[in-house]
Amino acid sequence: MGHDELDAALAGLDWERQGDVLVKVVRRDDFAGALALVNAVGELAEAADHHPDIDIRWNTVTLRLTTHSAGGLTAKDLALAAEIDGLLEQGIA
Amino acid sequence: MGHDELDAALAGLDWERQGDVLVKVVRRDDFAGALALVNAVGELAEAADHHPDIDIRWNTVTLRLTTHSAGGLTAKDLALAAEIDGLLEQGIA
Repeated sequence: MGHDELDAALAGLDWERQGDVLVKVVRRDDFAGALALVNAVGELAEAADHHPDIDIRWNTVTLRLTTHSAGGLTAKDLALAAEIDGLLEQGIA
Repeated sequence: MGHDELDAALAGLDWERQGDVLVKVVRRDDFAGALALVNAVGELAEAADHHPDIDIRWNTVTLRLTTHSAGGLTAKDLALAAEIDGLLEQGIA
């Protein structure tokens, strides 16, 4: 994926790029809310067969997407990032 | 909690002490197994009103217990660590 193509895709996403990783931090009211979010993201991840790194700190979930096997960001990361944004925009988790 | 008391409690636990934090790394067959483990640990955490930091890396879950409000390890950490060990020994998750 070229730089321009990647930049264009990123512009439509609510994720921060840190080098070869897309990062998204989501806060919920409490641990139960955070865990519900993780399970919803997990369903999308399983369906995509692509899994973000997930850190849970009580009510705060940090998601990190990259494609280790490709050594950088790929279309799989962008697609799953967009799906997760959709999940959150719909208020599903 | 004194050093001797803490050492005695730690000897019965399958956790590694790293300074003021108890750390446990658990591997499962896949992401679904890891997420099931996180949910089971989450139930214990909610019941105890004490929540480990949880990192999910596909099939690998890292749990970290400490009591931030007390600036170190407390009986709450040791109790929840023992409960999580029990969960794993029983093969529940």
